[in-house]
Amino acid sequence: MAEECNVLAVGVLEGNERSLARLISIIENKPENMSTVLPIIQSVLGRAYCIGFTGPPGAGKSSLINQVAQALNNKGHKIGIIAVDPTSPFSGGAFLGDRIRMQNQLDSDIFFRSMATRGSYGGLARATKDVIKLMDAFGNDFILVETVGVGQTELDVMQSTDTTVVVLVPEGGDSVQAMKAGLMEIADIFVINKSDRPGAEDVAIQLKAILQMNPNKQKKMPPILLTQSLDGLGVEELVGNLEEFKMRLEGAELENRRRRRGKNDFEETLRNIFIQEWRKLVQENSFINKKYHEAVEGNLDPYSAIRDIFPDGIISDKF
Amino acid sequence: MAEECNVLAVGVLEGNERSLARLISIIENKPENMSTVLPIIQSVLGRAYCIGFTGPPGAGKSSLINQVAQALNNKGHKIGIIAVDPTSPFSGGAFLGDRIRMQNQLDSDIFFRSMATRGSYGGLARATKDVIKLMDAFGNDFILVETVGVGQTELDVMQSTDTTVVVLVPEGGDSVQAMKAGLMEIADIFVINKSDRPGAEDVAIQLKAILQMNPNKQKKMPPILLTQSLDGLGVEELVGNLEEFKMRLEGAELENRRRRRGKNDFEETLRNIFIQEWRKLVQENSFINKKYHEAVEGNLDPYSAIRDIFPDGIISDKF
Repeated sequence: MAEECNVLAVGVLEGNERSLARLISIIENKPENMSTVLPIIQSVLGRAYCIGFTGPPGAGKSSLINQVAQALNNKGHKIGIIAVDPTSPFSGGAFLGDRIRMQNQLDSDIFFRSMATRGSYGGLARATKDVIKLMDAFGNDFILVETVGVGQTELDVMQSTDTTVVVLVPEGGDSVQAMKAGLMEIADIFVINKSDRPGAEDVAIQLKAILQMNPNKQKKMPPILLTQSLDGLGVEELVGNLEEFKMRLEGAELENRRRRRGKNDFEETLRNIFIQEWRKLVQENSFINKKYHEAVEGNLDPYSAIRDIFPDGIISDKF
Repeated sequence: MAEECNVLAVGVLEGNERSLARLISIIENKPENMSTVLPIIQSVLGRAYCIGFTGPPGAGKSSLINQVAQALNNKGHKIGIIAVDPTSPFSGGAFLGDRIRMQNQLDSDIFFRSMATRGSYGGLARATKDVIKLMDAFGNDFILVETVGVGQTELDVMQSTDTTVVVLVPEGGDSVQAMKAGLMEIADIFVINKSDRPGAEDVAIQLKAILQMNPNKQKKMPPILLTQSLDGLGVEELVGNLEEFKMRLEGAELENRRRRRGKNDFEETLRNIFIQEWRKLVQENSFINKKYHEAVEGNLDPYSAIRDIFPDGIISDKF
């Protein structure tokens, strides 16, 4: 497997689309293979600019992203799209239907990939981060990430993007939902899509009022744009705003965002390696195994069990 | 602080309501104090039966839980309620309004506690698990946990309950949402609340059809109940179902569920202690600090950095 990953990673660097598709599938199923892939691609990472689109289901994000991708592509940029769908496993196929349709509409020089849960929830955000890196190494100028829904997975995914667009629709309650889900804090740009429906202006005014109450003074007030993605109205303005935001961000602020991301990435990788080692150890060491099971059965609290197993700390006595 | 936690934990074991309220506040803000509290309360944990209520916002969960709590309380049970609200920090106060109203309606021998995010998302599910333990130690017979919304936090919280009730309303699309969010897999009982509205029977039939497609053969088909929580219709039947479920679960299956929870609890605690040690180490050791910053800046991939720092594994050479 490591040998195949090596070859595929080189293929990705050369811009081979099949290598990218195959490597994504491998990483989705066995993320630990990133330990082989990353050393090969690390030095080129960071060229792609990553834009996340999130918001409640039914806001028309797919068609909006389709439009944005076309517009950026027309300007000569190479585009990757990732659609993240935390659909439950047993209903997976059906919900991906509209995404498959979207795929056919897109030009063939826009690389599209849809990702669904493979049983484990926490794994989806992690896999998405890895796929963003692979698409970056592939040479994309822009990577557009769409999430379905407004939960924790979505927030985690948005931590890996350079810009976050929150897409709402005019129907009341949407902005309240977005606020509850914590989307207000992460939005760089708001889009009210399907703005031909009644109430679009009202929602924009409400949203502005809510944002002005926001005590986060360091952040510039995010623009609120109206779009109708089905006939492309407002998409040009959105692309203009995205480009402006990108330009404004480049330099110190972009470095800061990416450094923060680098820290999260590192700790996540460290935690994953640690827990793998731990699970192996618990199989092999009978004293540890005994203490562990006392804790699992509730006969000993976890803190006491960990103190018994590692009296001098888990890593401290190595240094 | 450790001294105060000691005293409060003993107070909680004696059923002192003020000690419980104070200790919950401490743990919400500084969860690491559980390392002092848990050894004191561990031996009595597991007496309380914990029921989670989840589902989309606006399904009337609060008033339903209110009714269920009253009904169980009338049968002589001691009840604790935890309302988990992953509201964004800057809008926190307003959304808790209806919960505060609910609190006033409740009998004083039902202990009610509302929990909101304190800045960090992942922390809310963890804090809720801790509060469940404190309420268990307090001597509650039943702990009812309400979550607002259908995201990852909610799924994490539901992993800590013995029974999960998914509450929907007749309006179409709700069950699709529940399915997307992964609620289908975790539901032990479905409730269609506000069942006086049109479409309640249709949703029940749809839901049943979806559940019959579920390949999870080991699990019994969850009952689907109709309620109108505002005037208490169907609440008696729900309580009857909860009691029946509890009886059926007691024995091997309940042990299994709690053992699974014990495993998750243990690993989470282990990971938290590990990462604290790591952060201290990175401050103190200049070689580690250098490698860490190379990775954070993107000049070295995390896997290579971790291999450089821990050439013999993170914990393996201690054993």
